[in-house]
Amino acid sequence: MNSVELFEQIQKKSSYLCVGLDTDIQKIPEHLLDLEDPIFEFNKQIIDATADYAVAYKPNIAFYEAHGIEGWKSLQRTIDYIPKDIFTIADAKRGDIGNTSKMYARAFFEQMNCDAITVAPYMGEDSVKPFLEFENKWVILLALTSNAGGKDFQNLTLTKGGDLYEEVLKKSQEWGDAGRLMYVVGATRAQALQNIRNIVPDHFLLVPGVGAQGGSLEEVSKYGMNDHCGLLVNSSRGIIYADNSEKFAEVAGQKAEELQAQMAGFLRKYL
Amino acid sequence: MNSVELFEQIQKKSSYLCVGLDTDIQKIPEHLLDLEDPIFEFNKQIIDATADYAVAYKPNIAFYEAHGIEGWKSLQRTIDYIPKDIFTIADAKRGDIGNTSKMYARAFFEQMNCDAITVAPYMGEDSVKPFLEFENKWVILLALTSNAGGKDFQNLTLTKGGDLYEEVLKKSQEWGDAGRLMYVVGATRAQALQNIRNIVPDHFLLVPGVGAQGGSLEEVSKYGMNDHCGLLVNSSRGIIYADNSEKFAEVAGQKAEELQAQMAGFLRKYL
Repeated sequence: MNSVELFEQIQKKSSYLCVGLDTDIQKIPEHLLDLEDPIFEFNKQIIDATADYAVAYKPNIAFYEAHGIEGWKSLQRTIDYIPKDIFTIADAKRGDIGNTSKMYARAFFEQMNCDAITVAPYMGEDSVKPFLEFENKWVILLALTSNAGGKDFQNLTLTKGGDLYEEVLKKSQEWGDAGRLMYVVGATRAQALQNIRNIVPDHFLLVPGVGAQGGSLEEVSKYGMNDHCGLLVNSSRGIIYADNSEKFAEVAGQKAEELQAQMAGFLRKYL
Repeated sequence: MNSVELFEQIQKKSSYLCVGLDTDIQKIPEHLLDLEDPIFEFNKQIIDATADYAVAYKPNIAFYEAHGIEGWKSLQRTIDYIPKDIFTIADAKRGDIGNTSKMYARAFFEQMNCDAITVAPYMGEDSVKPFLEFENKWVILLALTSNAGGKDFQNLTLTKGGDLYEEVLKKSQEWGDAGRLMYVVGATRAQALQNIRNIVPDHFLLVPGVGAQGGSLEEVSKYGMNDHCGLLVNSSRGIIYADNSEKFAEVAGQKAEELQAQMAGFLRKYL
């Protein structure tokens, strides 16, 4: 999916919601546990209930890897089930030397047919570039993350000026343009969004941390939106674990619809 | 495996060789391709031929993930086949927010039963700590990597003093001691090893980049060794792809033996 198609989806649904599929076997409703593939069954029902309100899904790869081969089967089934007009993000935080990153790119872009993968920047240019060589596929590079430890290194100030996360934003623009590259910016760091928009005015930002992690959707929308929206705001736990009964999917759908309605308002206000 | 047991293995074999299992289906000998699981068969023969000279194996997870579910089966078989007295490193470069890192830790420490996993530091303390909570399991944190892009961020100088990689070494010592935490330091940056040893005198260092990437084993050994060796030096392509005929395993064994013989000399000289 390219950026024009993504913006079309955002306008069509009046939504920039990404639903995070952090599917934890210990948290899904009990009545699913007897099925052959409870994780896929949970995801399937969540997708059915939320697809009208979401423009992206983001399976968190760790939750599938934790189950070994069976987990990878659930992941593949889930990705195959996501409607093709919805942007699919492998939240994998990969990144390694060139020949190895190329293998990760094949795994998620060719084997899995995802639209995007999250990548860690620590190893620099040749660890990121192999992911940028696939037509209509995206790198979502970690810039400023929503977790407490994000501050340990990302907010260190450099003698050349700026913080490390700002240097990641600046340097990486030499590697790929706004049609190939997005950035992860945590919603819990919304005060930094204005500054980030000055550095990367055109790029899409993937914003986790709204909901369970405490970020404000209004602030993110106000400071982060650009003329083609430029935002994908993720909610995982706040949607998929909103209810633990046989009605979990229905409630997840309601939670997604609530967020979509707020987003429709912010699109009218800030786009 | 704990650090005492690891040092015992190093002394017993007079070796600190780690063999990297970056097994690429496009590079393995043709006669294996008709077998049911060529990647595992290749690894099995490499392991049989090199186990007397190596104290560690390091499967590079990307090369298995690139084949989807079948790749994970080859990986699991490979890890199960590695002798239990040899240290097993999942070269996975993982790292995410706490609840996600915990899932990755389960994948590689519980599902796969590896001894160690490589972890990227960009997301800070809560992304690394979940990996440190497993008895006798290890985090190998990226510090100074061997690839060209390593310089993009790792060598940026901080206003508080030192480069980013030095801050990673310093800060992370608050999270885990030399019995739980190792560091990746590329052999192509051997001139930095003396400095690194001043910051982390006791920790083991995993050193890739000898061989195909051009690092010098003598320099690494001279500047990196401490009183319990403190080094695991990796060679991947230089061993496993040294020959492409039906004799590939025999030649790999010879290459591993050559490195082991050099290491035996450096252990006598520098330990």
